[in-house]
Amino acid sequence: MTETQRRTIRVRELSEAELLARIFPRLAVLGSALLGPGDDAAVIAAPDGRVVVSTDTQTQDQDFRLVWPSGYRSSGQDVGWKAAAQNLSDINAMGAVATAMVVSLTLPDDTEAAWVEGLADGLVDAVRSLGATGCTVAGGDLGRGGELSVTVTVLGSLEGRDPVLRSGARVGDLLAVAGRVGDAAAGLALLEHGPGHEALGPDLAAVVAAHCRPRPPLGAGPAAAAAGAHALMDLSDGLLKDGDRMARASGVVLDLDPAALEEHAGRLAGPAAAVGADPLTWVLGGGEDHGLLAAFPAASQLPEGFAAIGSVLPANGGTGGVAIGGRPVQPSGWDHFAR
Amino acid sequence: MTETQRRTIRVRELSEAELLARIFPRLAVLGSALLGPGDDAAVIAAPDGRVVVSTDTQTQDQDFRLVWPSGYRSSGQDVGWKAAAQNLSDINAMGAVATAMVVSLTLPDDTEAAWVEGLADGLVDAVRSLGATGCTVAGGDLGRGGELSVTVTVLGSLEGRDPVLRSGARVGDLLAVAGRVGDAAAGLALLEHGPGHEALGPDLAAVVAAHCRPRPPLGAGPAAAAAGAHALMDLSDGLLKDGDRMARASGVVLDLDPAALEEHAGRLAGPAAAVGADPLTWVLGGGEDHGLLAAFPAASQLPEGFAAIGSVLPANGGTGGVAIGGRPVQPSGWDHFAR
Repeated sequence: MTETQRRTIRVRELSEAELLARIFPRLAVLGSALLGPGDDAAVIAAPDGRVVVSTDTQTQDQDFRLVWPSGYRSSGQDVGWKAAAQNLSDINAMGAVATAMVVSLTLPDDTEAAWVEGLADGLVDAVRSLGATGCTVAGGDLGRGGELSVTVTVLGSLEGRDPVLRSGARVGDLLAVAGRVGDAAAGLALLEHGPGHEALGPDLAAVVAAHCRPRPPLGAGPAAAAAGAHALMDLSDGLLKDGDRMARASGVVLDLDPAALEEHAGRLAGPAAAVGADPLTWVLGGGEDHGLLAAFPAASQLPEGFAAIGSVLPANGGTGGVAIGGRPVQPSGWDHFAR
Repeated sequence: MTETQRRTIRVRELSEAELLARIFPRLAVLGSALLGPGDDAAVIAAPDGRVVVSTDTQTQDQDFRLVWPSGYRSSGQDVGWKAAAQNLSDINAMGAVATAMVVSLTLPDDTEAAWVEGLADGLVDAVRSLGATGCTVAGGDLGRGGELSVTVTVLGSLEGRDPVLRSGARVGDLLAVAGRVGDAAAGLALLEHGPGHEALGPDLAAVVAAHCRPRPPLGAGPAAAAAGAHALMDLSDGLLKDGDRMARASGVVLDLDPAALEEHAGRLAGPAAAVGADPLTWVLGGGEDHGLLAAFPAASQLPEGFAAIGSVLPANGGTGGVAIGGRPVQPSGWDHFAR
């Protein structure tokens, strides 16, 4: 190798201070906290006297692969984007707006410094592209470990509104979703079982992107709260599992409209054909889309970005659950559902 | 094994909901948030319109060992205590009081469920024993991974006070510490190089406990702020390294008093004899005590729990740094210091 070739620098060659010096300037573009990184703790404004908080860890080989069976390599940007997006989604799902995040990174010694810089860029890209304009990166922690993991904790402001809980759905409510449903699962199937990533056309690459860089509809949470939504939650584990949680917390049955489900599935015909899957399984069981599930009063005009997907029925003495076209389904047994 | 013997249950046998059902009741004793665990995010009071936030990850084999060379086994209680304590210390070091924590756990499949329950108990024990009476566990995240790690994010309230930064030390200030200095490093030396843990007498076991279950002086941070401290920081990486950070941030020299250092070292004569070490190396270089380093106005009466350890001198055009008895020392070169 000649001296003019660019040498790969790994984190084991850098002190913590040197690695931070590569990361901080990339994060500083996101605006300012009352007190940002560099002291023992940061100080963030909480203008209405409350702060919303959520935390989530992504671990290599559990939540993402560095190299997928399709040949796709997760970039630092992908992992940073997803870590930010899924936490921003939890704040959105309370009807709140993000104000700050802190990030704890655990890095194997042989991680490339450029990959870590990419992760910082991915965090920033997600915050900006998703419209979390008031969110700053206020601090974090760097450590070494045998496997790569990223923990993001996001703080948010309710801007004077009440939080919208998953327990508030009422009989007669209109059930709606914001964002796409099933796309991330379709993308995961392509990453795990699909043709080589290089061969994918734009429609298939789009669902892979939906998995690697989910796009939670961040405006939609506060809009749902302002529109009087009774219940709201993040779709992270799939429509049936998350719907079951909202249903049980609210003591109701969430009845999904088969025609709406088929419409969502129809959008995934291309990826389904590529891997020989039933797209309805993605719509019902696929997680990580980070859209929103909401219950609105029956007479509501749905806020922009929401589409009807069913209605809320009484639990009739049961614990509550999910139904499709009036027929109860088990969250873990939906694949036996007779279509 | 007979059926009446207690069977070891590992986390791979439990669903996330089943594991949470073992953890939540243990954490619920810590009082209530505006909205606690169970929804997409928690809601915490921030009565003065600001929130202090800090995050930190502990990873197996990096920050703790499950089995130490001395034979000591880290209990779940130890790891939970330390994860809580070191984050509570960061809030203390701003002059704030903790209001809530969120906890993200990554667990290998073969982790014993009882160990995880112990971790929850350790968090609670630390919060209570250290006096963080207003701190609740508001939520968290559970995931699987190849190695065990715990990320705690703590939120705090400044109760209307200004945060006390590390950058505020002024020439002429009195330098003081709260809490013991060097004990955790002595404990680490015993865990790594000492005699079998079972053979330790009470004075040696005490420094092992100082490492495994550090006791940050949580009242001392707000007391220092109320007493008008100019600068305050957590002693997590050792007196020289952390002192160097405060000195550079403040543009001053922190001059440590050799007699005070010898007094701290003298308290560690027992552990030093047990492993053949110089106790001054622990006092100057040892981390993880989670005491406080503070700079007070010269005429101050030190708040309870603080003891003088030096004074603040001008940097004389330099970048600032640490001196001992007026002689500059390098944070990484202190062991060459001529005593």
